[in-house]
Amino acid sequence: MIARSGLAHTSVVGPGDDAAVLSLAGGLLVAGTDLLVDGHHFRRDWAGPTDIGHRAAAANLADIAAMGAVPTGLLVGLAMPGGLPIAWVDDLYEGLREECQPFGAAVIGGDVVESQTLVIAVTALGDMKGARPVTRDGARPGHRVAIAGRLGYAAAGLAVLGRGFRSPGSVVAAYRRPEVPYLAGPQAAVLGASAMCDVSDGLLRDAGTLADASAARIVLDVTAFAVPDVLRDVGRAMNVDPLTWIFTGGDDHALLACFPPDVDLPAPWRVVGRVEEGAGVVVAGIPDEGRELAGSGFAHWG
Amino acid sequence: MIARSGLAHTSVVGPGDDAAVLSLAGGLLVAGTDLLVDGHHFRRDWAGPTDIGHRAAAANLADIAAMGAVPTGLLVGLAMPGGLPIAWVDDLYEGLREECQPFGAAVIGGDVVESQTLVIAVTALGDMKGARPVTRDGARPGHRVAIAGRLGYAAAGLAVLGRGFRSPGSVVAAYRRPEVPYLAGPQAAVLGASAMCDVSDGLLRDAGTLADASAARIVLDVTAFAVPDVLRDVGRAMNVDPLTWIFTGGDDHALLACFPPDVDLPAPWRVVGRVEEGAGVVVAGIPDEGRELAGSGFAHWG
Repeated sequence: MIARSGLAHTSVVGPGDDAAVLSLAGGLLVAGTDLLVDGHHFRRDWAGPTDIGHRAAAANLADIAAMGAVPTGLLVGLAMPGGLPIAWVDDLYEGLREECQPFGAAVIGGDVVESQTLVIAVTALGDMKGARPVTRDGARPGHRVAIAGRLGYAAAGLAVLGRGFRSPGSVVAAYRRPEVPYLAGPQAAVLGASAMCDVSDGLLRDAGTLADASAARIVLDVTAFAVPDVLRDVGRAMNVDPLTWIFTGGDDHALLACFPPDVDLPAPWRVVGRVEEGAGVVVAGIPDEGRELAGSGFAHWG
Repeated sequence: MIARSGLAHTSVVGPGDDAAVLSLAGGLLVAGTDLLVDGHHFRRDWAGPTDIGHRAAAANLADIAAMGAVPTGLLVGLAMPGGLPIAWVDDLYEGLREECQPFGAAVIGGDVVESQTLVIAVTALGDMKGARPVTRDGARPGHRVAIAGRLGYAAAGLAVLGRGFRSPGSVVAAYRRPEVPYLAGPQAAVLGASAMCDVSDGLLRDAGTLADASAARIVLDVTAFAVPDVLRDVGRAMNVDPLTWIFTGGDDHALLACFPPDVDLPAPWRVVGRVEEGAGVVVAGIPDEGRELAGSGFAHWG
């Protein structure tokens, strides 16, 4: 739902979606803020400062992409203990900058203050480039559900790190530096996506939010989710079903979108389900097919 | 100095000025971030949550106004201890919202996370509305120096609170809820101001920053600064020269700007000095007239 008012500069998408959209004279700007707190959102013993910079930027830039915008800039606020080495801070900014570079965005401002707790506040800005913002509430029965980007890798990496291991490197690296399909966001907007969000809380939960916002049911076809060998191997070693990571892991920041049936979907988008009348999220193609999940987690359909 | 590149969305004013400016297809957007840390930038025993919200918004919106932009929106990140009452948070947001209302801006997004230390991260956005951003580096010899807004009130209020008093109410209120002349910022941009900043670190220091950026000398005429009765009274009671608060206090967020000589200055702008060849800040009109201050503080010209 896009609310418009008579003022040229009112927000046209306010709190509650991935990011805020501002209407300007000649275009739509997208802005969103995320805070990352030491020990809660990152651990300095699990990732170095450059990786933490990458993750902090990625989490926020993914929100911009999930509106269909091209990320253009970051503002970075850093509240830091007095004893934090300058080299650590330099490396953090290096990671933030590097994450922006592939699509020409930049760190354009910020603030540094002293605080007992290390907090990184990232605000990302993006440009709709003439496209219409893609909110969460436009999925309609008959639309297809598609994913761009990886699922489960970062969650597997986090599980590995949590048990004190450092390998396999590919999943640990996925946790430390997510590979976000940023440009699939604006691509989806141009293609005419009806609803979109990034997967930051896990696919089931985020699909549930999107289903709720759209007052529709999202049916995911489990056979559309190929389990990569590396996730299968890690799962076996850790006695975890790798589908758990795929359906409930969030840190990869994949994009989840719905498209009207007449839209031809190019890569990296791959169809994983459909929108139906109803509510909640249903996972089809497993023995217990059709059981309602209510978007609340993998355990319900195990 | 405004750097432009071939990319439509590059920042045209980057870090180092009051706020970042983004060029969009049809206009210039201004964005800036400030962090406020409990115990450093505010004290919960000196101001209630609504007042803290007003101050947090004001500090950031003033940066937007100081670029010559009309503030349009705030994004608010809140890192808070688990035990902080919900009512406190509600009142904080009330203050943030109230500070935006007079000029039609709004809180358009944000994030709330848990943290041992209470940190408020505010990002403000503004619209240049067709005017050219006013940076700090355009003051030239022959230009006039002018102020909009109050000076010294908040510093006097802070001094009163610091000694455990709660009156006079007008200066305590000035500390708790600054009266920022927001619209004087875009007004100055339209009038053709050559340089501008908000007074957040004290007039001498901020004028010094502006003089350095412009490679010029700023001469302030002390006789142009009338000392309000209330500051005189508080100064007498506390044995402090009230000019100290006027020249070194920052929390009022007055705007300081330079204008070419042919510009007619309407209210609320008042001329307080001139730009000359040279460097640094000079306060004229006192017994020790002409002594160089180097922008480092009132004590140097006592």
